[in-house]
Amino acid sequence: MELYFHWFDLLGIAVFAISGTLAAWRKQMDGFGVLVLATVTAIGGGTIRDLILDVPVIWLSNNDYFYAIFAATALTILLVRKRLTIPNNALQIADAIGLAFFVVMGTQKALDHGTSGFVAIMMGTMSGVCGGMIRDVLCREIPLVFRGELYAVTCIFGGLVYIGLLELGVGKMPSMLCGMTALLLLRLAAIRWHLTIPVFGRHGKIDP
Amino acid sequence: MELYFHWFDLLGIAVFAISGTLAAWRKQMDGFGVLVLATVTAIGGGTIRDLILDVPVIWLSNNDYFYAIFAATALTILLVRKRLTIPNNALQIADAIGLAFFVVMGTQKALDHGTSGFVAIMMGTMSGVCGGMIRDVLCREIPLVFRGELYAVTCIFGGLVYIGLLELGVGKMPSMLCGMTALLLLRLAAIRWHLTIPVFGRHGKIDP
Amino acid sequence: MELYFHWFDLLGIAVFAISGTLAAWRKQMDGFGVLVLATVTAIGGGTIRDLILDVPVIWLSNNDYFYAIFAATALTILLVRKRLTIPNNALQIADAIGLAFFVVMGTQKALDHGTSGFVAIMMGTMSGVCGGMIRDVLCREIPLVFRGELYAVTCIFGGLVYIGLLELGVGKMPSMLCGMTALLLLRLAAIRWHLTIPVFGRHGKIDP
Repeated sequence: MELYFHWFDLLGIAVFAISGTLAAWRKQMDGFGVLVLATVTAIGGGTIRDLILDVPVIWLSNNDYFYAIFAATALTILLVRKRLTIPNNALQIADAIGLAFFVVMGTQKALDHGTSGFVAIMMGTMSGVCGGMIRDVLCREIPLVFRGELYAVTCIFGGLVYIGLLELGVGKMPSMLCGMTALLLLRLAAIRWHLTIPVFGRHGKIDP
Repeated sequence: MELYFHWFDLLGIAVFAISGTLAAWRKQMDGFGVLVLATVTAIGGGTIRDLILDVPVIWLSNNDYFYAIFAATALTILLVRKRLTIPNNALQIADAIGLAFFVVMGTQKALDHGTSGFVAIMMGTMSGVCGGMIRDVLCREIPLVFRGELYAVTCIFGGLVYIGLLELGVGKMPSMLCGMTALLLLRLAAIRWHLTIPVFGRHGKIDP
Repeated sequence: MELYFHWFDLLGIAVFAISGTLAAWRKQMDGFGVLVLATVTAIGGGTIRDLILDVPVIWLSNNDYFYAIFAATALTILLVRKRLTIPNNALQIADAIGLAFFVVMGTQKALDHGTSGFVAIMMGTMSGVCGGMIRDVLCREIPLVFRGELYAVTCIFGGLVYIGLLELGVGKMPSMLCGMTALLLLRLAAIRWHLTIPVFGRHGKIDP
């Protein structure tokens, strides 16, 4: 089980790194920019979570994460240079798998350090979305995750399912698997049927 | 006294959350973006302060902050949806009260952890302004606090009054109240008479 | 030796503060914005490094850094106000000296806290470039360091030379000096002959 977890973790890291690489490519950054974007997208969320929980930042003592990031980045550059297309659907599905893993593991980590369930769900969601937010800020974009896609909400949903089952007395491992599955299914449904959440638009006016 | 402090704290949090909600509204973000903007505006400054001081981040063990944020956000969305206007003056005055509280409490927290008075004033000011700076960066704006309004300067002033009185041997509680009052009065004067600080403009040229 | 180190450190801080001041000047920020930009450019990289390593943030207990920042900022404003030009070459050379110092010291600090050589080089590079990245984000620019100049790569090179010599059994002090010198020479060469690294441009296409 533990071993599977490690591979899911690296899969999530790699997919996030690809999304950072592609963002850097769109902004015509240099090789260093590509590496930084790939890296912060992949490990930014977990880093902020660990800093706030005041636990050792995970990649300080494990180079595996960087191997996954560099491999994913190199592969992406190669594909893009060769004018090959990366199937967007495959990317989104891999991203959903990585996200499911990151969010539930992040929630678990917060619970392990004694936070309330509410804060734990928030930390899990941060693990999943903050990397992409930093990526977008460095690219001078308003974070994609604020733009109406059903993405962050799936994180909150997965965390709720996980914590709900724990509260009901279900064991840790089955609760985690259910939380991940629930998140994954909702995210896949959102990708398949283009589900959105309402954008908080200009429906009112405000005293200037 | 302690109890009053807690209410002022929540008032400050709520007002900062409103300003984050309104910023998200202007940028037409979705419901998740609204919550994130409200939350980082409200607790971003205190979080950075706590991380740098290496003390437990305050909201990790207290959900009250989130209740205040969610209530303020929900109320703001409701008002804006109903095309009701939020009187800007009331907002600014509430913001000034919250700011006075945040800054002096932040200064105090830094002093408690053994920093110099100079660093303590800096940490107090960070508590007051960093949340808004993150809000503006996420909205892809240059931080408002750099734009000439007498805002950050009132934070520094409040911190100076507080630390100055402590140095003169005045007790902790009266010093805090004086610091808050000084900050509040200067900020209210700045709002009333539109006081500004000089913008560092294009008065010179530079070797390209 | 220690004493020289302290002066190099303050030189690096001061030069980074000048670059922050000039960035704020270009964006017509107010006096507070100038100070914040100067400060985050100067100490931002070291702060992030210290937070991630979970060691006390260096400027919490030492006001010298702020004196250097304020002196550099005041001098820069004075020069710019008087329409005097700051020779860009002098700035770049001073920046290179400060950078060489920051990066090798940051690498050393990470090694002291038990990270792998790989992570140590990354932390050293972060010490050198993150301040400028925050400066650019606050100015609503895509970080300069992603734009093709040979800057971050010199940091990685300096770190590699330092760690490589340590691995070969060379003493700590000569290794540090060689790492700094290597970084400095490569950076000066990059300035002199406008060396660049390839920008990752629109050579491919991607499935939208």
